[in-house]
Amino acid sequence: MMTGSIPAGAPESMSPQTEALAAGILAGQRRALARAITLVESTRRDHRGQASRLIEHLLPATGKAIRIGFSGPPGVGKSTFIEAFGMHLIRHGLKVAVLAVDPSSSLSGGSILGDKTRMETLAREANAYIRPSPSGGTLGGVARRTREAMLLTEAAGFDVVFIETVGVGQSETAVADMVDLFVLLASPAGGDDLQGIKRGIMELADLLIVTKADGDLAAAAGRAAGELRMALHLMRPKVPCWRAEVLTVSAVAARGLDTVWEAIGRFRTAMETTGELAKLRAEQARAALWREIEEGLIAALKEHPAVADQAPALERAVLAGETTPTLAAERLLTAFLGRTVRPE
Amino acid sequence: MMTGSIPAGAPESMSPQTEALAAGILAGQRRALARAITLVESTRRDHRGQASRLIEHLLPATGKAIRIGFSGPPGVGKSTFIEAFGMHLIRHGLKVAVLAVDPSSSLSGGSILGDKTRMETLAREANAYIRPSPSGGTLGGVARRTREAMLLTEAAGFDVVFIETVGVGQSETAVADMVDLFVLLASPAGGDDLQGIKRGIMELADLLIVTKADGDLAAAAGRAAGELRMALHLMRPKVPCWRAEVLTVSAVAARGLDTVWEAIGRFRTAMETTGELAKLRAEQARAALWREIEEGLIAALKEHPAVADQAPALERAVLAGETTPTLAAERLLTAFLGRTVRPE
Repeated sequence: MMTGSIPAGAPESMSPQTEALAAGILAGQRRALARAITLVESTRRDHRGQASRLIEHLLPATGKAIRIGFSGPPGVGKSTFIEAFGMHLIRHGLKVAVLAVDPSSSLSGGSILGDKTRMETLAREANAYIRPSPSGGTLGGVARRTREAMLLTEAAGFDVVFIETVGVGQSETAVADMVDLFVLLASPAGGDDLQGIKRGIMELADLLIVTKADGDLAAAAGRAAGELRMALHLMRPKVPCWRAEVLTVSAVAARGLDTVWEAIGRFRTAMETTGELAKLRAEQARAALWREIEEGLIAALKEHPAVADQAPALERAVLAGETTPTLAAERLLTAFLGRTVRPE
Repeated sequence: MMTGSIPAGAPESMSPQTEALAAGILAGQRRALARAITLVESTRRDHRGQASRLIEHLLPATGKAIRIGFSGPPGVGKSTFIEAFGMHLIRHGLKVAVLAVDPSSSLSGGSILGDKTRMETLAREANAYIRPSPSGGTLGGVARRTREAMLLTEAAGFDVVFIETVGVGQSETAVADMVDLFVLLASPAGGDDLQGIKRGIMELADLLIVTKADGDLAAAAGRAAGELRMALHLMRPKVPCWRAEVLTVSAVAARGLDTVWEAIGRFRTAMETTGELAKLRAEQARAALWREIEEGLIAALKEHPAVADQAPALERAVLAGETTPTLAAERLLTAFLGRTVRPE
């Protein structure tokens, strides 16, 4: 599996239990999938080692699902839409997994995302699998666990993976970095929605869906869609083969869901035939590699005794304008690396 | 200048020549400023040491200018606008510095930004100082040198610092990270401009200026401004105290420049009275600190023999889907740090 030029790394291999999990996942067993995701979410060192080996073993069986991210402001009807759309796909014979990135979730509090009680009908389906966000830690840690859970669901045979996020901090960017297509749900109030669309999110979207397009709000939803189309028209496309589209949906009336799936199909076809999808996934993997390296380096630096000593005072001095970021960085790097470091 | 709890760092202090530069800058001498910026741009180790000491010495004299970033697509009339607006401010008795961030510039080719030949009238003014982008290297290196040059111009008594960028790669973000206010120049063709606004840039803008609002294009400029206002209306503001505004300007006819300066004044007042400006600058400094630390760590990692050996093969394996970013990151971190590292 690994080429000869790559070092053996840690000598551990999969334990018999982990091997059984791998076999269970490849056979599409829900229980094996659930236990494997729990293993991946664990922070115990021995579990991390087994989780890594498990995922590496299953890698050839991953990649076949379409990966869709969902975000939108609170109250826009995300759970309602995801459940309705998930049920729509299941009725068409597809297997749908629903994961979540919510750095604010905690073991005690649970996450409001991926909460089965908000998607009871979908949760009961044999061909659906809903999992709450991994809890706690940094956004980077939560995102990594969700990405690994996504790979496990693909190895278990799911055709579609939804990854939802509430929009805390940089969580939309983290989700966009692991999906093929990013869907932004928008309120039918359009520009009159006092909150507005979080900056930086509109430019991530490949598809925008205005929700609650029924009854009194149907006309408003149409207007909001028009405003969004005009705004998108001003922006350069993310990829040459696809211009972001704006659709209106009534999840409650199950109206517009066909159109959403049809648009996603056109997106996927365009991205696959132009080779853009493979390019996107490779770039996401490369970016994830360097992000993990940076996070590991910063964590190691912060733990170093000499740095732990000097960092708070140096950061304060930078904030107070007593020294420059460059000089403070030089001092911390010198303390960590044990040799004088100057920026390029 | 530094508190007792911060380590002495490298034993060097300012040489007599550097001390003379410091005195010359504080006296507002152009020649001293130019030589100091050249020192800051130098990659020689001894020059870097002296440059750092010089800037740290001058820090208390910095921070008094208003820092304005400018970007826009090629052909929108950036140089024309910057020259006209710069002249407008000089006629009002202000001292204006014009810097640039252009990672594509090279020592041989020069940069098209900050090119005195494109702003001849402004370049001749005693109260204007125009400097081309530092050349070559990484965007991070160019941005750092420009930030340091900005601090030097402030110490030399300039009231306004413009920092322009053409929009290569992430250069707008780099400029937005060092200015108080980011101005995006837009074409009067609006949504019909085939290029469109680069994704991620509209959300950075505090002020949008539609150029060439004269003659045949005056009506089109008005419509383009309307489209931009509608798009902005959909987005959440960057700061509570300011909603991005859209203005139209004819640089050639010197029409609208008063309105631009008046809007900038209102922005500055709102940001200063709410304490948002101090908060922004402190956050920019903190972000710059950690960015420089990350860049230094990655550079050190890439130079490490064991890593230089393994990194290309591991990156290829990640791109080919043979191993996960997490596993590859673990292997490189272990090689660099000399101990097994697992992600959190």
